[in-house]
Amino acid sequence: MSHLVIQTDFGTGSLSVNAMHGVCAMVSDDLKVHDGNNDVNQFDVLNASDSLMYVLPYWPKGTVFVSVVDPGVGTKRRSCVAKCKNGQYIVTPDNGTLTYIKEEIGIEEVREIDESVNRLPGSEGVHIFHGRDVYAYCGARLAAGVIDFEGVGPTYPVEEIVEAPYIKPEKLEDGVSGMINEAGEHFGLIGTNIPFSWLEEKGIHYEDDVRVIIENDNTVVLDKVVKHVKSFGYVSVGEPLVFNSEMNTVMFAINQGNATLEYGLGFGPKWKMTIKKV
Amino acid sequence: MSHLVIQTDFGTGSLSVNAMHGVCAMVSDDLKVHDGNNDVNQFDVLNASDSLMYVLPYWPKGTVFVSVVDPGVGTKRRSCVAKCKNGQYIVTPDNGTLTYIKEEIGIEEVREIDESVNRLPGSEGVHIFHGRDVYAYCGARLAAGVIDFEGVGPTYPVEEIVEAPYIKPEKLEDGVSGMINEAGEHFGLIGTNIPFSWLEEKGIHYEDDVRVIIENDNTVVLDKVVKHVKSFGYVSVGEPLVFNSEMNTVMFAINQGNATLEYGLGFGPKWKMTIKKV
Amino acid sequence: MSHLVIQTDFGTGSLSVNAMHGVCAMVSDDLKVHDGNNDVNQFDVLNASDSLMYVLPYWPKGTVFVSVVDPGVGTKRRSCVAKCKNGQYIVTPDNGTLTYIKEEIGIEEVREIDESVNRLPGSEGVHIFHGRDVYAYCGARLAAGVIDFEGVGPTYPVEEIVEAPYIKPEKLEDGVSGMINEAGEHFGLIGTNIPFSWLEEKGIHYEDDVRVIIENDNTVVLDKVVKHVKSFGYVSVGEPLVFNSEMNTVMFAINQGNATLEYGLGFGPKWKMTIKKV
Repeated sequence: MSHLVIQTDFGTGSLSVNAMHGVCAMVSDDLKVHDGNNDVNQFDVLNASDSLMYVLPYWPKGTVFVSVVDPGVGTKRRSCVAKCKNGQYIVTPDNGTLTYIKEEIGIEEVREIDESVNRLPGSEGVHIFHGRDVYAYCGARLAAGVIDFEGVGPTYPVEEIVEAPYIKPEKLEDGVSGMINEAGEHFGLIGTNIPFSWLEEKGIHYEDDVRVIIENDNTVVLDKVVKHVKSFGYVSVGEPLVFNSEMNTVMFAINQGNATLEYGLGFGPKWKMTIKKV
Repeated sequence: MSHLVIQTDFGTGSLSVNAMHGVCAMVSDDLKVHDGNNDVNQFDVLNASDSLMYVLPYWPKGTVFVSVVDPGVGTKRRSCVAKCKNGQYIVTPDNGTLTYIKEEIGIEEVREIDESVNRLPGSEGVHIFHGRDVYAYCGARLAAGVIDFEGVGPTYPVEEIVEAPYIKPEKLEDGVSGMINEAGEHFGLIGTNIPFSWLEEKGIHYEDDVRVIIENDNTVVLDKVVKHVKSFGYVSVGEPLVFNSEMNTVMFAINQGNATLEYGLGFGPKWKMTIKKV
Repeated sequence: MSHLVIQTDFGTGSLSVNAMHGVCAMVSDDLKVHDGNNDVNQFDVLNASDSLMYVLPYWPKGTVFVSVVDPGVGTKRRSCVAKCKNGQYIVTPDNGTLTYIKEEIGIEEVREIDESVNRLPGSEGVHIFHGRDVYAYCGARLAAGVIDFEGVGPTYPVEEIVEAPYIKPEKLEDGVSGMINEAGEHFGLIGTNIPFSWLEEKGIHYEDDVRVIIENDNTVVLDKVVKHVKSFGYVSVGEPLVFNSEMNTVMFAINQGNATLEYGLGFGPKWKMTIKKV
């Protein structure tokens, strides 16, 4: 039994995602198809990359992830399947979606999808829904063993995989910095790409106070002294905290509040967080 | 392994849909149950019909679709199962939901659900949730082979199936017209029931300019010259385009913009689009 | 084939729920994992309890429900698995989520999760996502038969299970009263915990008029004479009605309208409904 996870920027509950499930079912009855993040920020390839990073380690080795954030659909960007160094496969337009995977996990090999073989028969006249006609179809064939990885199409150099620019995490004299890659509206959690273990390295321990500085496009939006604790319940309701995220990265939040909305925060390559010792 | 797809106007993530999944699981462990469009416009049987049309061709032959858009629940409308000419089954109140299927795909036979057999035992006192107690239960029994099509209940004439009024597509002297059946808020795509191939027939080719006229209840809302291209990326960001939808029908949109919101458009039997040669 | 249902307050479509699905898939390929209510009111353990009550009876006996509404994550509240008297299992923080199950269905036995065995290996440094690292992992192990109920951890007295305060249903001289436990925004249905059969006992029959009184924190918000009928279609569009819910409890609504929004209603332990004979 093989697993395939679909993520898109179509919106949770989108009927287009259902059509992708249907195409997978037509390819094989042996697949288990799951919904990943279908609320990827529209056209945002870095957010797609981040969503993949969030779930890749929590699925069985050999799971196929189909990612469709594809503002250039029907134009000349490559369609590809990447074989990650951790054993997962990602089917996606090669448009920056693979950025973090290439940088942080590593890609063993990448192949361009041969649409003469791996395109839903009869769909040739449609140029706007490669998610259904190419990515779901090719991904399901790979997951179900109808084709092997070689059957995807010709290989090309991993170095050619498109990367989108982002802020890498950095160790500073008196702290750490990195990019805000999550600013949810639901719980208002502010996630970053700063490894949590770096705090310890910089001599910042649980129960210490830290200084949190958040910049948007080089303008300081927040500069605040905050408690560094294990989890929400270690500060009062309404109080901010810095803690270890479920990704083992530095996270910032308000206990039972909403840091995103309360402080007007966002995420992406213009949003930087710095944590300093006090 | 049989497939069953649930669509409702209960809202994506509705707990009532989960109860329908549970009833299917109680009928048989051999079913694969999937969520279709659970954001069908409330009480809108034409939108339900359109959602079915969108996914019917992309599921294996013999898939059972359970559709619950049922403003008359508990009153005297018929509950039925339609066997479509393309091999799919639809379980639904007979209230207009089958309109497009009857008109465009064709219905081979229709049967009224015999609730003395095909109703969840113990649910007789509940009059407001046929989705769970009748449609999911009966659909699961059919999909799992507990009953065959005859086991649904007595057959009745296909001509008696209720149809809702809508604007049929038409070929004009200098163009084509039809109904807007989709005006999404997510990507703002404007879908119609005009076959895409009709443009070619009328001498309208890729890269031509066309005139798009949109009327709401006979009042012109938009009248604009627009590029006809293969996909979004063939016009600049923010520019409108006419193109082939994934349903092989005429579609209108703004590249990386939102035509629904920007032009204040809607869908349904009052919304008409006309495309003319320039 | 075993079933596992996930409910959380993470929001429908949350990527965190996908990670929980992935963890289940890593535990066993033989599980069928489903999404229950992932829009539980944030941090609202009574709403979590109510959502469980809504679906528990509609899944096969032995289904494992994983419920993650956990404002105290990472602090000292117990993590447990309850074996219900109806044969279902619930994996949850012991924080009030089990209130209605304990009161209305009954709990046969409860065990505290032994995290030295039933925690995702490698997740020890994460203190904010027991949903993935403890509840999904332990629930999947139980559902897949990797552990039996004894394997969860040590038993503790059912009487110690935490209950949250709520308004119990009551029979009055001239009617009935109880708590509003649902005030949906989608259809605007107002649900209560008053058994529907009590109306009959009090001499209130279909087609009778009844007086509906709704109080918020002891202040009357609505006092209205309403028709008691079988289903929506028995009153005109826009007219209110009292009827039997799909849970066999008393419900109040407006036919094709939205009682929640129109009358400004809410739900929870401050919201009381009284129904009186006229």
